[in-house]
Amino acid sequence: MNALPFAEWMSAVQGRVENALCRCLPDADSVPQRLHAAMRYAALGGGKRVRPLLAFAAGELSGAPTKRLDRVACAVELIHAYSLVHDDLPCMDDDTLRRGRPTCHIEYDEATALLVGDSLQTLAFELLADADFGEPARQIEMIALLARASGSRGMAGGQAIDLAAVGKPLEQPELELMHALKTGALIRAAVLLGALAGTPLTDDERARLDRFARRAGLLFQVVDDILDCTASTATLGKTAGKDEAAAKPTYVALLGLEAARAYAGELRAEALAELAVFGARAARLTQLADFICHRPF
Amino acid sequence: MNALPFAEWMSAVQGRVENALCRCLPDADSVPQRLHAAMRYAALGGGKRVRPLLAFAAGELSGAPTKRLDRVACAVELIHAYSLVHDDLPCMDDDTLRRGRPTCHIEYDEATALLVGDSLQTLAFELLADADFGEPARQIEMIALLARASGSRGMAGGQAIDLAAVGKPLEQPELELMHALKTGALIRAAVLLGALAGTPLTDDERARLDRFARRAGLLFQVVDDILDCTASTATLGKTAGKDEAAAKPTYVALLGLEAARAYAGELRAEALAELAVFGARAARLTQLADFICHRPF
Repeated sequence: MNALPFAEWMSAVQGRVENALCRCLPDADSVPQRLHAAMRYAALGGGKRVRPLLAFAAGELSGAPTKRLDRVACAVELIHAYSLVHDDLPCMDDDTLRRGRPTCHIEYDEATALLVGDSLQTLAFELLADADFGEPARQIEMIALLARASGSRGMAGGQAIDLAAVGKPLEQPELELMHALKTGALIRAAVLLGALAGTPLTDDERARLDRFARRAGLLFQVVDDILDCTASTATLGKTAGKDEAAAKPTYVALLGLEAARAYAGELRAEALAELAVFGARAARLTQLADFICHRPF
Repeated sequence: MNALPFAEWMSAVQGRVENALCRCLPDADSVPQRLHAAMRYAALGGGKRVRPLLAFAAGELSGAPTKRLDRVACAVELIHAYSLVHDDLPCMDDDTLRRGRPTCHIEYDEATALLVGDSLQTLAFELLADADFGEPARQIEMIALLARASGSRGMAGGQAIDLAAVGKPLEQPELELMHALKTGALIRAAVLLGALAGTPLTDDERARLDRFARRAGLLFQVVDDILDCTASTATLGKTAGKDEAAAKPTYVALLGLEAARAYAGELRAEALAELAVFGARAARLTQLADFICHRPF
């Protein structure tokens, strides 16, 4: 896929990941059918697949085999999908629309959505522990990395800080910690896992990639906040303007729209600077950082 | 601990596991504090620790090092604790009492309890992926086993079948499938993981241990159903008579109390027969099967 223009590469990866997810999720007609159908509903047929794209792009740095990247991309995307299903529940964000369709608990029911999230998380770890992956020591490193990124000191912890912050004015350092955990940790994991699926990087390369990933994660969130207040519900496929309505702390609320845009530009530049050392191997990651910065949705 | 009478061995293991859980859970004063305090509330200070006891008892078959058994026992107990927190939520069993205390969502709030369950699950896999365990290939096998036991084709799947069955008459084969998944899968995993932490068993030994574990899991559930309708709320530390009130399918509802008791006796005998080949190495497992059969709560 190396020679493809960016848009075609992106479509190709999205298609691969959709197929890989389709294969790794339990069949909808296997017992318990309703749970399995709901898991497929929540994980298939939508989403920008930003984390899988990052894993595939990072895999180009280390010459990772495509089959391994499929596995890694699915694991990260399943964690992401589980978090969306649980975040949309009435006791959390209470949202009814996701990826242009009813959220999982609306299409099914709350109890099923709870079990869907639980089971998608488990499946992510099951995939990374699959015997046909090879190199158990590497697998263990990847599982540990994904677990730390997802748990109470990662994504779920960011969600808890977000809950506690509703209606309270957060300063920028607190907002950055929240986002570094809530969205940043899993984006960082996607990048590092993609690179881990290939030939090991040097310590310096890994440190640079890590700094790139942290900047890219923050960039993603700042752009998300900008889009929440400038794009329409139809474009987003989820309820727009919700952060403001819920008095959630956002970069736009903190900095204002123009300063938030300028900050996104700085983060993009800082992220790209870390990639210089990789030369042409980082072409996809560079394009992807630009896409994250300028995406329309 | 080999020479201790059973009751003292049980207390010693329960104490070890409480300490090990205490160490592996994030500090209550680390960010996000409320989530971490709630995780500790949900996982510490109570419970019979049946799954850890089974892991330790099975570890005696294979001469497993105690430190590894601590790790395995914590991982299995964290999965169990996560499932209790989520099962108690209003959209599931809507229970207010657990281990004699308010359930997690009553003591904290629903959103926190959701994240507590999510994070306890993640922590279980993080523990098994810890670098100081050694033998990555064995770790991978254990993670895969725990994931299969916990997910939609294991514990969470059993929960989904249970949800679908409320108010419907289930026949005994369907009831056994539900329990084989809902409680049996994790009990089986506890036994097999305990054994895996030591010197590998032969294929025949492993097959026998697996049959023991399946019988013991079913025995546990049958006795649970009997206790739900014969013991008091104070003795159980959770709401008694709830299964009947919710028209849940139970062995007592299906077979009647006396036949359920007789069935428990048969399961015990079948389980113990599988252990004969292990001789004295299976002393703790034998005692534990008896305890599960005759426990007062």
